[in-house]
Amino acid sequence: MKKNETAVYVILGSKSDTEYAQAAMKVLESFGVSAKLWIASAHRSPQWLEKVLRQGEAADVSIYICAAGGAAHLPGVVAARVLKPVIGVGIPTKYLGGVDSLLSIVGMPSGVPVATMSLGETGMKNAAYFALEILALGDKNLLKRLHAFREQQALEVQNTNQ
Amino acid sequence: MKKNETAVYVILGSKSDTEYAQAAMKVLESFGVSAKLWIASAHRSPQWLEKVLRQGEAADVSIYICAAGGAAHLPGVVAARVLKPVIGVGIPTKYLGGVDSLLSIVGMPSGVPVATMSLGETGMKNAAYFALEILALGDKNLLKRLHAFREQQALEVQNTNQ
Amino acid sequence: MKKNETAVYVILGSKSDTEYAQAAMKVLESFGVSAKLWIASAHRSPQWLEKVLRQGEAADVSIYICAAGGAAHLPGVVAARVLKPVIGVGIPTKYLGGVDSLLSIVGMPSGVPVATMSLGETGMKNAAYFALEILALGDKNLLKRLHAFREQQALEVQNTNQ
Amino acid sequence: MKKNETAVYVILGSKSDTEYAQAAMKVLESFGVSAKLWIASAHRSPQWLEKVLRQGEAADVSIYICAAGGAAHLPGVVAARVLKPVIGVGIPTKYLGGVDSLLSIVGMPSGVPVATMSLGETGMKNAAYFALEILALGDKNLLKRLHAFREQQALEVQNTNQ
Amino acid sequence: MKKNETAVYVILGSKSDTEYAQAAMKVLESFGVSAKLWIASAHRSPQWLEKVLRQGEAADVSIYICAAGGAAHLPGVVAARVLKPVIGVGIPTKYLGGVDSLLSIVGMPSGVPVATMSLGETGMKNAAYFALEILALGDKNLLKRLHAFREQQALEVQNTNQ
Amino acid sequence: MKKNETAVYVILGSKSDTEYAQAAMKVLESFGVSAKLWIASAHRSPQWLEKVLRQGEAADVSIYICAAGGAAHLPGVVAARVLKPVIGVGIPTKYLGGVDSLLSIVGMPSGVPVATMSLGETGMKNAAYFALEILALGDKNLLKRLHAFREQQALEVQNTNQ
Amino acid sequence: MKKNETAVYVILGSKSDTEYAQAAMKVLESFGVSAKLWIASAHRSPQWLEKVLRQGEAADVSIYICAAGGAAHLPGVVAARVLKPVIGVGIPTKYLGGVDSLLSIVGMPSGVPVATMSLGETGMKNAAYFALEILALGDKNLLKRLHAFREQQALEVQNTNQ
Amino acid sequence: MKKNETAVYVILGSKSDTEYAQAAMKVLESFGVSAKLWIASAHRSPQWLEKVLRQGEAADVSIYICAAGGAAHLPGVVAARVLKPVIGVGIPTKYLGGVDSLLSIVGMPSGVPVATMSLGETGMKNAAYFALEILALGDKNLLKRLHAFREQQALEVQNTNQ
Repeated sequence: MKKNETAVYVILGSKSDTEYAQAAMKVLESFGVSAKLWIASAHRSPQWLEKVLRQGEAADVSIYICAAGGAAHLPGVVAARVLKPVIGVGIPTKYLGGVDSLLSIVGMPSGVPVATMSLGETGMKNAAYFALEILALGDKNLLKRLHAFREQQALEVQNTNQ
Repeated sequence: MKKNETAVYVILGSKSDTEYAQAAMKVLESFGVSAKLWIASAHRSPQWLEKVLRQGEAADVSIYICAAGGAAHLPGVVAARVLKPVIGVGIPTKYLGGVDSLLSIVGMPSGVPVATMSLGETGMKNAAYFALEILALGDKNLLKRLHAFREQQALEVQNTNQ
Repeated sequence: MKKNETAVYVILGSKSDTEYAQAAMKVLESFGVSAKLWIASAHRSPQWLEKVLRQGEAADVSIYICAAGGAAHLPGVVAARVLKPVIGVGIPTKYLGGVDSLLSIVGMPSGVPVATMSLGETGMKNAAYFALEILALGDKNLLKRLHAFREQQALEVQNTNQ
Repeated sequence: MKKNETAVYVILGSKSDTEYAQAAMKVLESFGVSAKLWIASAHRSPQWLEKVLRQGEAADVSIYICAAGGAAHLPGVVAARVLKPVIGVGIPTKYLGGVDSLLSIVGMPSGVPVATMSLGETGMKNAAYFALEILALGDKNLLKRLHAFREQQALEVQNTNQ
Repeated sequence: MKKNETAVYVILGSKSDTEYAQAAMKVLESFGVSAKLWIASAHRSPQWLEKVLRQGEAADVSIYICAAGGAAHLPGVVAARVLKPVIGVGIPTKYLGGVDSLLSIVGMPSGVPVATMSLGETGMKNAAYFALEILALGDKNLLKRLHAFREQQALEVQNTNQ
Repeated sequence: MKKNETAVYVILGSKSDTEYAQAAMKVLESFGVSAKLWIASAHRSPQWLEKVLRQGEAADVSIYICAAGGAAHLPGVVAARVLKPVIGVGIPTKYLGGVDSLLSIVGMPSGVPVATMSLGETGMKNAAYFALEILALGDKNLLKRLHAFREQQALEVQNTNQ
Repeated sequence: MKKNETAVYVILGSKSDTEYAQAAMKVLESFGVSAKLWIASAHRSPQWLEKVLRQGEAADVSIYICAAGGAAHLPGVVAARVLKPVIGVGIPTKYLGGVDSLLSIVGMPSGVPVATMSLGETGMKNAAYFALEILALGDKNLLKRLHAFREQQALEVQNTNQ
Repeated sequence: MKKNETAVYVILGSKSDTEYAQAAMKVLESFGVSAKLWIASAHRSPQWLEKVLRQGEAADVSIYICAAGGAAHLPGVVAARVLKPVIGVGIPTKYLGGVDSLLSIVGMPSGVPVATMSLGETGMKNAAYFALEILALGDKNLLKRLHAFREQQALEVQNTNQ
């Protein structure tokens, strides 16, 4: 993949979840991976979602990170439509915490997988890190930087012990 | 609506759930309401589902009953696509009982409702009864028959007391 | 149905849930559908509820939207009493989030369906949208307006992408 | 209370739960307390239920034991109607185990209490034992027999240690 | 029972739950029923709890209302010790909402019933109302006042409809 | 501790759970640790339980393993009574799986700990292994045997790879 | 990646879960992707697991599929140790269904992602399909075969409609 | 054990949970038991955790208290590595309350036990009290002080009754 191409599409089901998306975007950007953020609800704007996915296909996007809450169908609908890895993140919900989002995303039928992360901001960050791990399979430089990140992360934990 | 038109589409996400669908079909048929049963997975056959929905549109189907399990997106995907009442039924799941199906169906976002029934066979029957109640709004004869059904049902309960 | 008749009864189990009811009333009013809001607890005022339902019968109300929390029996009690479509909405609860309300509403026995929506304000809005979809089966003008609403809704999602 | 009067009404929402009811009936009978078993669904036969309750009122029944499953409204509907102690028992459900029945029974609003027992057969037995404890408040002979039962019960546990 | 005797013991597992207890005490007092509030943890002060129960026995207390949170053993421990009706109320918990308290109270084994109410303040009020219903079995005057309370309660709901 | 003294009391709330207890007894015996099995319900035989605990005190028993199901109070009641480490194991329940037992055991208040293991047979075995780890703090020979057991256990896993 | 290299390690926490693993192995093999199955418990054989991971590193394995049940730490422990994509699958559990396995796998902290699939056999198959989607990012031939598989899958659903 | 040696290691998975750890440290210190607090994530700093455990081994630490949240693997990973009693405490989580932490800790496989306490601060305190009970098995003086603590605790409950 050429560096200036868009490797990852981050798709939100709702504009109101933008802060969660930023958590993923920042991680990707800090590793120099180009990503694009879209708002496209599977329920409220299915045709617009279709357009976004066609654009993704045309741009040969490698990975789709999809976040939604409640009856969170977005990741599954995208997974049914593309053949690229789809990473799903549940947005927390007001009354049920997000267990509804989690179960709506993780329980996909055989043949149409969605890689589910934990809920909310942590899940969005990990969606990005997981995307990086996938991309690093074909990019030794990125793998090195991931390695450095992990070492730095471990050091930070260790350094809290004083 | 003319009697020989198809009023209801019953759509299953998987062939293996056919016995659940029969519970709904039987109720509808016993009231003389024409219904058609389809197998069309939102995840494994999205294009085929689209074809089914186009046919439904062409036939001016009044009500869609959709049943699926796990990350049960079928009812929501149909509700996003049509403007007719969509009734959703969760198919029980092997490990989580069906609470996953239920939450995946009931938690729709504002503007795209799915009328959720209880899990499994009882839910399928009630999807049919609810469809009948909707159709009876414009069909006094059907309303009378529903009334008779309810009275018969009450009588059967009462008659168990001997 | 004549335009100036009351098409929908919205019944709350408790005065304290009025703000939720307003969410449904506003949607119905914005589509020109006449609705009436009642407070009538199935547990604390069963006789008053009976009066409300008799009035509804006399007025030939088409649809009942019932909202309650906790051991939320109101939708089921109304469904046992009328033959019109009953839409149930769970009011969130202080300690259990509302999963108690949801399960108390959705698990109706065969023959007495309640169309369950998601919890709280979103559920109330969707109860109204679902009522509109039912009424639109016999009202082409309303169907057109629902169609316009859906297109507007999709456009709003799409327009957040800038 | 005279001995030959009916002290307890046991009401089931469904004939199919009769075996659970027998568990309660046997306990009551073994203590010489007169009880009557009714099948009367709050949802499928509300008028019949009303008749049963009127008969209970006429007979000055002291305690109502009500058992139902799923959206288990029977105990709450009876509690809303009578001023006597109502004991509720959740019938286990096929897919959700009975947590739905439990939450539908226990979460009553202020002013209309239902005394909830555990699920299924154990709950039915305990509903009977609890009814006995209530009746024993005004019946010293019954209190003595309850005392003897508890001692016997303790002895049986102790005697398993050999 | 003479009016100036203590009819009900309200026992809390922790001083910090006093506000919940007041909800029950107020209801009982408003009906002129004498009640006494105790703090006695089954886990932290088992011997003190035993003293409280002995005092209750000596005073021939009719009903025990016991409230506790988390691994809420207080109602069950009291029920194992006395032969009077024990009403249990779960105190909400910080992290699990109170589902832990509820399950710890409701799931009693056969022969040792606890009458479980809903969580928190509503549960405490209903524990008091349920105690009143029990006491009213032997007190026609109290029954009349309960009847008046229910009518007043229904009227208040009805009067919110303006 | 002298080898022929009883180091561990295994207490069951019900005779019917004996097969679970055997899982713990076998582990303890295979390490030469003396244990005694008792049936003593906290709810149905509180006085007998008190006798068992007094005998345990007299024998200076080091560790109590307590197993119960449902509103599982046994471990907590024992922990409130003795100052020795109490290990609690939830017995699976028919309708709720055992999540009720687990929450009834693990949620102890500050100052009265119960060491909770997983549900059922695995939990009973681990209660025994945990007891061994405690006893091994003062018994180097036992520590060695635990070490050998762990190595053997690892080897068995490794050897399945062929 | 050369075709005869091992692309995927499938690691089970327990020999008894082998049938689940076969579901993943079969999918991978049917697409000509070389995979190796290991039994290596994170809890019972941590050193052996370390050896397996070292061998994986030496063989430059691309993807790790890890399946475990209960307190399912295997996927997370592997994710903490390697920089390759780790896919986690929860094995169903006897008493809690597998919700414990699911939550133990999906809730990873920021920086150490595990791609979680649904429970049991379906999850294992989807772990394999997801691995194929990752590998297909760098293998156009594999992508074509995935495309064919998806079309075949859709056709099979469509063909059940007769 | 000599008094000035470190008897307990308290290990946190994250610096942000320090306030919880302090709850345990204070209890241990108030009984004169030497404890050391570490931050060492099983996921983000596995090698550093290994160093901490080696140091613990060298210092012959008796008991490990491990606290973590979400997919809480720390207690289990430590239990797999040492032969000393490991006490696990779940840190509450933002969206799921901590039921995820609890299930990730309590469900250990046979042979590798973790003694699970309740969630959060109460759990941390009880981890400390449980550690004291273990240490008191070999320290009569400590046992006396635990005894005094329990009596004081009971007295404080009793004294709230005025």
